[in-house]
Amino acid sequence: MSTIDEIGIIGGGQLGFMLAQASLYLGIRSHFLDPNQHSPAGLVAEGIYKPFDDINALRELAQTSKALTYEFENINYQALQELGVEAHPSPTLLHKSQDRLAEKELCNELGFETAGFLPINNSGDLEQAANKLGFPFLVKTCRLGYDGKGQFWINSAEDFMKLQPKPGVYIAEAKVPFDRELSIAAVRGKNKEVRSYPLSQNWHSEGILRESCPFQMVEEESELVQTLQTQAEAIAKAFLEAFDYIGVLSIEFFLHNGKLLINELAPRVHNSYHWTMSGSETSQFENHMRAIAGLPLGSSKLSKPVRLFNCIGKMPAPRDCLAIEGLHYYSYHKEPRAGRKMGHLILSEPSEESIESVRKLLL
Amino acid sequence: MSTIDEIGIIGGGQLGFMLAQASLYLGIRSHFLDPNQHSPAGLVAEGIYKPFDDINALRELAQTSKALTYEFENINYQALQELGVEAHPSPTLLHKSQDRLAEKELCNELGFETAGFLPINNSGDLEQAANKLGFPFLVKTCRLGYDGKGQFWINSAEDFMKLQPKPGVYIAEAKVPFDRELSIAAVRGKNKEVRSYPLSQNWHSEGILRESCPFQMVEEESELVQTLQTQAEAIAKAFLEAFDYIGVLSIEFFLHNGKLLINELAPRVHNSYHWTMSGSETSQFENHMRAIAGLPLGSSKLSKPVRLFNCIGKMPAPRDCLAIEGLHYYSYHKEPRAGRKMGHLILSEPSEESIESVRKLLL
Repeated sequence: MSTIDEIGIIGGGQLGFMLAQASLYLGIRSHFLDPNQHSPAGLVAEGIYKPFDDINALRELAQTSKALTYEFENINYQALQELGVEAHPSPTLLHKSQDRLAEKELCNELGFETAGFLPINNSGDLEQAANKLGFPFLVKTCRLGYDGKGQFWINSAEDFMKLQPKPGVYIAEAKVPFDRELSIAAVRGKNKEVRSYPLSQNWHSEGILRESCPFQMVEEESELVQTLQTQAEAIAKAFLEAFDYIGVLSIEFFLHNGKLLINELAPRVHNSYHWTMSGSETSQFENHMRAIAGLPLGSSKLSKPVRLFNCIGKMPAPRDCLAIEGLHYYSYHKEPRAGRKMGHLILSEPSEESIESVRKLLL
Repeated sequence: MSTIDEIGIIGGGQLGFMLAQASLYLGIRSHFLDPNQHSPAGLVAEGIYKPFDDINALRELAQTSKALTYEFENINYQALQELGVEAHPSPTLLHKSQDRLAEKELCNELGFETAGFLPINNSGDLEQAANKLGFPFLVKTCRLGYDGKGQFWINSAEDFMKLQPKPGVYIAEAKVPFDRELSIAAVRGKNKEVRSYPLSQNWHSEGILRESCPFQMVEEESELVQTLQTQAEAIAKAFLEAFDYIGVLSIEFFLHNGKLLINELAPRVHNSYHWTMSGSETSQFENHMRAIAGLPLGSSKLSKPVRLFNCIGKMPAPRDCLAIEGLHYYSYHKEPRAGRKMGHLILSEPSEESIESVRKLLL
């Protein structure tokens, strides 16, 4: 098994950009597929600017690469297996993760808890959901939702009227009155080694991640931190091993009455772990690419206290940001647009005061 | 004074590559000039592939950029001042540093000690050098030497015969029986702020830097470390302020009987500070580009113990390197050639054992 030094990435957005960027120094050259001529990844990798569903474009990417990976879930998982080069992470898990219902069923099959859920195939199912889950509950599209898109609350029987259930399109989910939102990222190499990052605590607003930091920085009870870390690592490991998974796997949880409920799987690097770029010896991006390339993994330990802030819609001026001691600036070189993830900031050794200063810049 | 987001770099070698790479996340786009079509900087920046002494190529670079910088000293310092955009670091200091004699005279003028030296304009000067400096002494070309090139030892009167002194070409330098080779890198921003990195101790072989690490990691006497740090910072600051310098300045020293003698100035980032990529919150590359761009500087403190190893002539296999816990791999994507700097390795939290493991890979 030789080291892979040419990797093809499906998607040239910020995740593809950071994957390609992080692996350059490893001697790895990346290629990517993205219809957008202004893809951030184009700054550091060779682009093929064609639609994601263009099978010939996928073949072209495969031909320039010795292995493939991807930065988002909405891709043709079947084609991925027929391109003649290895594709990671597991197309099988990718397939499951493309459908919220299949994903939740998988979690339960492996013995892990999720929020209560029900498939919504007809109006009768909606009534059943109301009875089983209680108002308010959440209805989500099974496919293609992200950053809060494709989901809405059902607060009363009247809200039913707005919905036209079709088989396989919607899933109902119980509202979890969670105490915290947590996530874990774990990476598995071709030598079957698994390394897990410390749990991250995440804060969303309008369905979009706003801030994240290592859970151990915000939870004072270190025994709870250790217990949940051990549980989350075991959950991640179960998925990694069940699918002979190579690369980073991210799992979002609700913490509810001291229990971890799985909210969502992402077979890729994850926004809630961007702080590893400053807070860990090996970022999630570098470790993902090391895994795909067949290289040994690097340390996933927390190297210093950090806090991540997403920049949504626009980037604050670099001069204002860098005037805050310990603040690091990551621009994705994207055209500003409302609701768009434009970049992020990572604050080292955050204090209440410096956190407030950063938040003011993001208003 | 607005933030500069397009920077032109003269030279697309590994230093240009790492400068462009380090500033991408700051939202800065780099352009570079280099005749070599396979310049490492081409991986992350737009190249103009023309000779360095082509004044029209320099103009083209200036037109695509809002400020210029450079990665090596052998460039036309006069042209740099006539291109219509700001050029940093100081072309005046660059000019001095291009000539070993002018550089040493400048050091003495500012009140700092160097090894004894004499200009060699004729055979009589060689005799005088022998009398004043004693055998053996070193003869160097005043211009264009690097990595030990263009210098040789005069061990006896017979060695004189090999040399044909011409005015302004050679300088004689006393042999300094140094205890250690140290260097400092300091950076000055447009707001006149100065930040200094911790002193680095350096080990050369055959005129080429092989290893470096923060001096405080190898010197047990912390008072000596602090005293020399203070002295080196004062020396750097004197140059930075005398030339209204913007960017990173590097100074190599001999430590001789507890005194710092200046060996060489480099008006740029320096190989002996590549360990800042893993060992400091802000690498020398990012701080240099922040300075040129008019951004606030970042912390230059040591964040963890590290050791730098240069890879000369060839890169060891990434798989072997990354199997050593805490070792980070930096390839410059260059074609292997004897004596060429191909990349470097940075070891976190080095132990005697892990240092030996790395050295074995580099044999």
